[in-house]
Amino acid sequence: MDRRSFIRAGALGTAATALAAPAIAQGNITWRMVTTWPKNFPGLGVGAQRLADRITAASGGRLTVQVYSAGELVPPLQSLDAVIDGTAEMSHGAAYYWQNKSPALSFFTGVPYGMTTGELTAWVRFMGGQEIWDEIYDQFGVQGFLSGNTGNQTGGWFRDELTSLESVKGLRFRTPGLGGQVWEKLGATVTNMAAGEIFQALQSGTLDAAEFVGPYNDLALGFHQVAKNYYMPSFVEPGLATELVVDKTKYQELPADLQAIIRDVSQAEYDQVSADFIANDPRALKTLVEDHGVQVRDFPADIMEAGAKASKEVLDGLLGSDDPLVKKTAESFVDSLKITRVRTERIDSKFQEARELYLDL
Amino acid sequence: MDRRSFIRAGALGTAATALAAPAIAQGNITWRMVTTWPKNFPGLGVGAQRLADRITAASGGRLTVQVYSAGELVPPLQSLDAVIDGTAEMSHGAAYYWQNKSPALSFFTGVPYGMTTGELTAWVRFMGGQEIWDEIYDQFGVQGFLSGNTGNQTGGWFRDELTSLESVKGLRFRTPGLGGQVWEKLGATVTNMAAGEIFQALQSGTLDAAEFVGPYNDLALGFHQVAKNYYMPSFVEPGLATELVVDKTKYQELPADLQAIIRDVSQAEYDQVSADFIANDPRALKTLVEDHGVQVRDFPADIMEAGAKASKEVLDGLLGSDDPLVKKTAESFVDSLKITRVRTERIDSKFQEARELYLDL
Repeated sequence: MDRRSFIRAGALGTAATALAAPAIAQGNITWRMVTTWPKNFPGLGVGAQRLADRITAASGGRLTVQVYSAGELVPPLQSLDAVIDGTAEMSHGAAYYWQNKSPALSFFTGVPYGMTTGELTAWVRFMGGQEIWDEIYDQFGVQGFLSGNTGNQTGGWFRDELTSLESVKGLRFRTPGLGGQVWEKLGATVTNMAAGEIFQALQSGTLDAAEFVGPYNDLALGFHQVAKNYYMPSFVEPGLATELVVDKTKYQELPADLQAIIRDVSQAEYDQVSADFIANDPRALKTLVEDHGVQVRDFPADIMEAGAKASKEVLDGLLGSDDPLVKKTAESFVDSLKITRVRTERIDSKFQEARELYLDL
Repeated sequence: MDRRSFIRAGALGTAATALAAPAIAQGNITWRMVTTWPKNFPGLGVGAQRLADRITAASGGRLTVQVYSAGELVPPLQSLDAVIDGTAEMSHGAAYYWQNKSPALSFFTGVPYGMTTGELTAWVRFMGGQEIWDEIYDQFGVQGFLSGNTGNQTGGWFRDELTSLESVKGLRFRTPGLGGQVWEKLGATVTNMAAGEIFQALQSGTLDAAEFVGPYNDLALGFHQVAKNYYMPSFVEPGLATELVVDKTKYQELPADLQAIIRDVSQAEYDQVSADFIANDPRALKTLVEDHGVQVRDFPADIMEAGAKASKEVLDGLLGSDDPLVKKTAESFVDSLKITRVRTERIDSKFQEARELYLDL
């Protein structure tokens, strides 16, 4: 028996045990969680597994969650459909992967020049965000919960130095989603490709630049070997919030305590995943700089400025949507950002700036 | 029967039901949570009650938590002692209130020029902070969990405008704890007094200035009626983390699922309380400025700079402590801040700065 068959047999064995009489008597159930992340993917894949384990532990095994990493049960980008069609009860991914179902979903992951980790949770929990998200997902019979955030991402790996907005013209850049739309407006030739293909394309010169997540994830993919200029911050992904999606009917059929556990553990994980990136991004960055000679660079100011204008155009497009739910989401998001940014700018930024200038540890 | 008696009778009725045979058969227990906050105190008192309710809900009532606000069962500053001596099983407050037990405890709330909300959770959960905290609290037979954060606070209410560091000399300023030590080094005459006494002292001129928390809490106390200059940010309280403290022996005697629920809900509340302040501080600030004519001001740069030097001296004092556990805590905190600040400065600050400059919503 090869290792794979052994594992499969083991899994079946476990499933059989879980269905045995005593378990049923106690009302124990097992739910399948599909994810969009590779197994052990730093921060995110690890976060999906930890979320599952914490639900299992907090429920005393009454709700056991079994994780299937990207491709194990369904292809990663079919994770939401797997919940909709009943193949799985839960999905761990990012809402903006499902923009084809509703462009409004981007807001629950992050949009160009949008909200920080803290602002997003404030909007979702205290400024009407969750209610709108529920309205969107109700159409598909699912329920979404925030379950993590990478924090502000990095801007990308560039083979050549960028001297001004001029340098962006014609640049072949791997950057997906709304961020890609923004970079296109700046003059880049934007392409998307899977994570596993980026290194090769950068090396061969098919790509001039690529962005992925941040140091913690990027280090493992080796981009620094073929592109030494590491630009930051990302202005198109000031954060990437992950979601836990559950089948709403099955969720509502759970006893109230198990519903609370799923909700509470997801929120705990919003903090846990953020903390993981805050602790481990700078450690990885140190390795990239000190061991691999990576050059950390700021984007030229005219790129940051043009990026804001282009992001505003993308936001305006969503604000002007014919779909009333997209329009409503965009309005709620922008109204909330107008409020939260005041605190961020008058208080948080000023402190961080002073600490950077004056605190010599 | 008046409404109050009716409610009391109703409450007794409920208690009697909870103690009836079936409940006991299910092993239901009730724990008392004392808090350092007044009932319904925005963000914090509300957070303590919500934490209790969420534990009760997630445990399906197997662990029911009953909240006693400041003074209801014990005086607020005896909350930790109440857990140590068995008067209560839980306390919700801030670790720096117990500096007399160990000066190291300040680090788990926040120290001058210290960590942001995100950096603190990164240190506690991924950089050794929790383990050291456990070592400190083990001496008292209790277990601490982070349970909220106000985020970066404001600097205070000043009757007169501050033009430079010179303005601080002799200023009678209400600001407690390590922050008070920093302001003393800057030349202020620092006093402490309870929240309820501040307004009167500002009005009569006994105080020239006072700081409390931030707009969300300050608005209710009415300081704006007697001091119009609202300075920000606080550099002595870049955050105030709250804690849940539990009796460690009783905690470890709980079934593993209830232990997990307490831990997970506390972490969910770290996010929830932060989100509450991020959403509601700027709303309160808007009211203060637009309805009450408050002047929002930045501290002059020489105050921010001298504040950093003075904070460093306070930190150096803790780093040089004769108490090995204080020294160890300070070293772990400073080492972690040296790492996390790189990400904050290179990524988060740069994004926030660009958004402030360029995003015109």
